[in-house]
Amino acid sequence: MNFIEKLNSAARQNQSLLCVGLDPDIERMPEKVGVFEFNRAIIDATSNLVCAYKPNFAFYEALGDEGLEALRNTVDYIPGNIPVIADAKRGDIGNTARAYARAIFTELNFDATTVSPYLGFDSIEPFIEYHDKGVFILCRTSNAGAADFQSLLAQVDNISRPLFEIVAMKASQWNTHGNIGLVVGATYPDELRLVREKHPDMPLLIPGIGAQGGDLALTVRYGTDAAGEKAIINSSRQIIYASRGEDFAQAAREAALSLRNQINQNLPDRK
Amino acid sequence: MNFIEKLNSAARQNQSLLCVGLDPDIERMPEKVGVFEFNRAIIDATSNLVCAYKPNFAFYEALGDEGLEALRNTVDYIPGNIPVIADAKRGDIGNTARAYARAIFTELNFDATTVSPYLGFDSIEPFIEYHDKGVFILCRTSNAGAADFQSLLAQVDNISRPLFEIVAMKASQWNTHGNIGLVVGATYPDELRLVREKHPDMPLLIPGIGAQGGDLALTVRYGTDAAGEKAIINSSRQIIYASRGEDFAQAAREAALSLRNQINQNLPDRK
Repeated sequence: MNFIEKLNSAARQNQSLLCVGLDPDIERMPEKVGVFEFNRAIIDATSNLVCAYKPNFAFYEALGDEGLEALRNTVDYIPGNIPVIADAKRGDIGNTARAYARAIFTELNFDATTVSPYLGFDSIEPFIEYHDKGVFILCRTSNAGAADFQSLLAQVDNISRPLFEIVAMKASQWNTHGNIGLVVGATYPDELRLVREKHPDMPLLIPGIGAQGGDLALTVRYGTDAAGEKAIINSSRQIIYASRGEDFAQAAREAALSLRNQINQNLPDRK
Repeated sequence: MNFIEKLNSAARQNQSLLCVGLDPDIERMPEKVGVFEFNRAIIDATSNLVCAYKPNFAFYEALGDEGLEALRNTVDYIPGNIPVIADAKRGDIGNTARAYARAIFTELNFDATTVSPYLGFDSIEPFIEYHDKGVFILCRTSNAGAADFQSLLAQVDNISRPLFEIVAMKASQWNTHGNIGLVVGATYPDELRLVREKHPDMPLLIPGIGAQGGDLALTVRYGTDAAGEKAIINSSRQIIYASRGEDFAQAAREAALSLRNQINQNLPDRK
């Protein structure tokens, strides 16, 4: 089963477009709970409510060897039917990109990863050569600084378009194995709508709801495909830090359940 | 001593603009030599011939825990007077970028790092807030795919310029702490010249000579500043894989010595 099949299967089984970001931050986690122990409890509490999990590498790397062991244990622990997306945002030249792809897909056994487009096709090719894995190219990110470069009007074939649209267009051209998706932040609904309209079949990984302030109703409406699928709506802090007490896992489950249901209530009736 | 002072000091002491890329690849390394053992021998053989070392994280991450232990040991082993640049090309949003910066600068104790510009200022700010550390923003990379986005003509203030020029311009505006540099590949000498002309004081990290085919004479001429400094000319494979036999460290020394001298011979007489 390739990534897209695994994603759709999990989404249908759990009736969910919710992806939980596993971003351990010791300043927000319950005291005296280790990183893997924390993740395991969150996974136990939410694995029948999500379509995917997404650990962001930065939080694990900041903890040194212990963090990387926790990352490895976390990927191993996630039930085999739920895809795991490495939020690594890698982007490097050919032989180095190959090493990163091997680290993420073979060494750590992730189902998909995020990559940065700035270095162009040969920095992305080593990832998409893993045909069964998913590759999400950063397109329009959810942060304030995204506009610095992503929204600049740039020219291709004498037509001016914002850079993120050109990234989406190239990503679509490169998608010969059907395993490329795009990262588009919920904080920019107009851009999300535009990307979805131009790329009706690509999976979109959508961060930025919750703590970052993205509008959930617009995210669901603009982000999903014609079948109400292929949107992976990520929430990290709102779910995993719903409580800092002993009830953190139960609180995470309640927050995930609530968010999953809100997403489903906002699905347009396209029948 | 901040990064720039440390860099200039090492360059003057060793009369060298050469940076050796420590990119361990078990398919090219001598047999039966561990990664740290390999790096240690290379460092012992070259540390009085270089201005910096630059480990690329991909090669270590691809080796799992063992690789990361080797990376940590390598940084610890490099003599304190030689700056160590993390080639990590990170680029993520605010709180995540802060975690990456902490991992690289505090946890691993690097003197500088490479970062990707695609996410804009708030993805770079957490790095430059470490005023004593160096931050090299990817500008015009050395790979073939670089042109896919970096050379697109984009508009700022109604003037069209290639995207990499806009990245350099913004980097210069953001450089309020004097700790930002740019990555410009040796494989594009015209672009290198242009970046140096417009940014006479910024340190440039220049990969792409040797295996990638960049012209050394043009690299030295266009990459250095008016004092013949602030160019960090990286070579990895040409040095560290000069021999696969038992003489690998001696061969690396000879290759480094030869390349350092070639660089110095090409320094323009600006007196």
